[in-house]
Amino acid sequence: MKKLINDPRRVVADSARGFGLAHSGLVRVNEDPLYIVRAAGVTPGKVGLVSGGGSGHEPLHAGFVGPGMLDAAVPGAMFSSPPPMPILEATRAVDGGAGVVHLIKNYTGDVLNFEAAAELAEAEGIDTRSVLIADDVALEHAAGMTGRRGVAGALLVEKIAGAAAEAGEGLDTVARIARYVAGQVRSMGVALRAPTVPHAGRPSFDLGEDEVEIGIGIHGEPGRERVRLGTAAEITQRLIVPVISDLNLRNGEEALLLVNGMGGTPLSELYVLYAEARDLLDRRGIRVIRSLVGNFVTSLEMQGASISVLRMSETLTRLWDAPVDTVSLRSPLR
Amino acid sequence: MKKLINDPRRVVADSARGFGLAHSGLVRVNEDPLYIVRAAGVTPGKVGLVSGGGSGHEPLHAGFVGPGMLDAAVPGAMFSSPPPMPILEATRAVDGGAGVVHLIKNYTGDVLNFEAAAELAEAEGIDTRSVLIADDVALEHAAGMTGRRGVAGALLVEKIAGAAAEAGEGLDTVARIARYVAGQVRSMGVALRAPTVPHAGRPSFDLGEDEVEIGIGIHGEPGRERVRLGTAAEITQRLIVPVISDLNLRNGEEALLLVNGMGGTPLSELYVLYAEARDLLDRRGIRVIRSLVGNFVTSLEMQGASISVLRMSETLTRLWDAPVDTVSLRSPLR
Repeated sequence: MKKLINDPRRVVADSARGFGLAHSGLVRVNEDPLYIVRAAGVTPGKVGLVSGGGSGHEPLHAGFVGPGMLDAAVPGAMFSSPPPMPILEATRAVDGGAGVVHLIKNYTGDVLNFEAAAELAEAEGIDTRSVLIADDVALEHAAGMTGRRGVAGALLVEKIAGAAAEAGEGLDTVARIARYVAGQVRSMGVALRAPTVPHAGRPSFDLGEDEVEIGIGIHGEPGRERVRLGTAAEITQRLIVPVISDLNLRNGEEALLLVNGMGGTPLSELYVLYAEARDLLDRRGIRVIRSLVGNFVTSLEMQGASISVLRMSETLTRLWDAPVDTVSLRSPLR
Repeated sequence: MKKLINDPRRVVADSARGFGLAHSGLVRVNEDPLYIVRAAGVTPGKVGLVSGGGSGHEPLHAGFVGPGMLDAAVPGAMFSSPPPMPILEATRAVDGGAGVVHLIKNYTGDVLNFEAAAELAEAEGIDTRSVLIADDVALEHAAGMTGRRGVAGALLVEKIAGAAAEAGEGLDTVARIARYVAGQVRSMGVALRAPTVPHAGRPSFDLGEDEVEIGIGIHGEPGRERVRLGTAAEITQRLIVPVISDLNLRNGEEALLLVNGMGGTPLSELYVLYAEARDLLDRRGIRVIRSLVGNFVTSLEMQGASISVLRMSETLTRLWDAPVDTVSLRSPLR
């Protein structure tokens, strides 16, 4: 295993420490238990937004803490859910009296631990709402869990719910908007090469030299099928057709297109996929009005990518365009 | 070879097309000859800034075209210098009457082709200045070239020279500031695993399973030494000690610290390196007042990282903090 780390057991803590040092103007890292909040502290009267989950998907979620997006991120160990206690402490830390929304990617551990934290928070008088993100169309039911996995769509839910919270919307409205976005986004990914989890020490799965896994999960969970690596045009079609079909996106509708790298794919290849995806959507009369290309929801150094499509509306476009100021997502200055 | 591309011969063109489609509000891609300019067009009276070089280092340079930074980027083929003609055409396209500065990473092909383009531009009455970037301390003279290679320091030169040009400084002043920054930044990189250039089809070099190359170039050029992979603390020390020693950076001075990923290294590992680098600089009494962590000057999907240190001054800090609005580098909203 080749990694720039000190010790597999310390990588999450070491990395969080570096993150806090590098971005002290924007975030504050609480080391024990581990969670990340805005440097400016809690905003009285604003609904708090907390997300989290296993580490290894950076910049998700810590890179999205800041004005216009999350109030707190709770990183677990690599590919492992954070326990209830740090989630509870982060929830306490960001409650400005208007309650807290938990944005949860649909994995069994995350769901259970956020639920436990929410119950404890409620018992302390903090009003909470939970929103599940389950945008991966690859599988209806993955091993050991009910329903679809949450993948790159999480980023879009966090951005838009964050804008609603920043605009002063109340707890139920922010939760409703987050659920609405989660319902309007679909994603699918492909892996070319597996990542290596530090404490495991070897690649998470094997793929033949000309084989790719369509519908891969962000922890290397099995996808829909293994096929021979084709052209970018063929791969794009395999990813995006199920996405727009599941979303029932039709001629004349508007969409946001996210091409997300899994961590080990050059940016140049993500733009090749983006061009193919645009061509395909253009041919179907779907208007891409907002775009995002980059490594946002990764799987360590996995080689691969995912494509997400969000059905847009006037409200979602306005919230998407609202100012955001985080380490890894920032509004244009215009 | 596993890549998300259509054809090794088309990857740069396909990728540029996607880049233009994804960011049409910010950039315009001229397809033949290939160069990228700001969507807003030329700014009359402003000094133009052009950079370029072989592709495969994205987001460098196209990701840094926009207000406050570059006016044009000229991508060559993968790891190959762009010929003089696109450089000349980009130079024409951004000349607002105040002349154009060429920011050139020190590689023989880049130097010759930018020089040829500058001569042609001068013959047409466009005043040009050339600034060489040669920040890599690994080797004094690499194979086939005179002097040090230009690596991640290019990003810092582009940002600060861009701010000076945007502030209305004249041609000689912008060139002088760019040269000053180029003289105050040093870098060194490490590779854990080689990238594969699409038209080559196999990894650029071989490394043993527990071996790393210290002082690697961004095209996989040989470095200073091959050593056993140590801890992040050990690797950081091997990279940063030559950097600060060459820069003669002393107790009490201020610096910008850039930890740059080579394309295939998880963000979490870059932050582990950042924490180690901060500790080392702290112990030497060097104050890190600005930081940047991410994949900015890459080498396709190479696993590895580089560390750059820029000696700061009041002027450089002010120019660094000036607004910038590009695809891959944006000012905080604060």
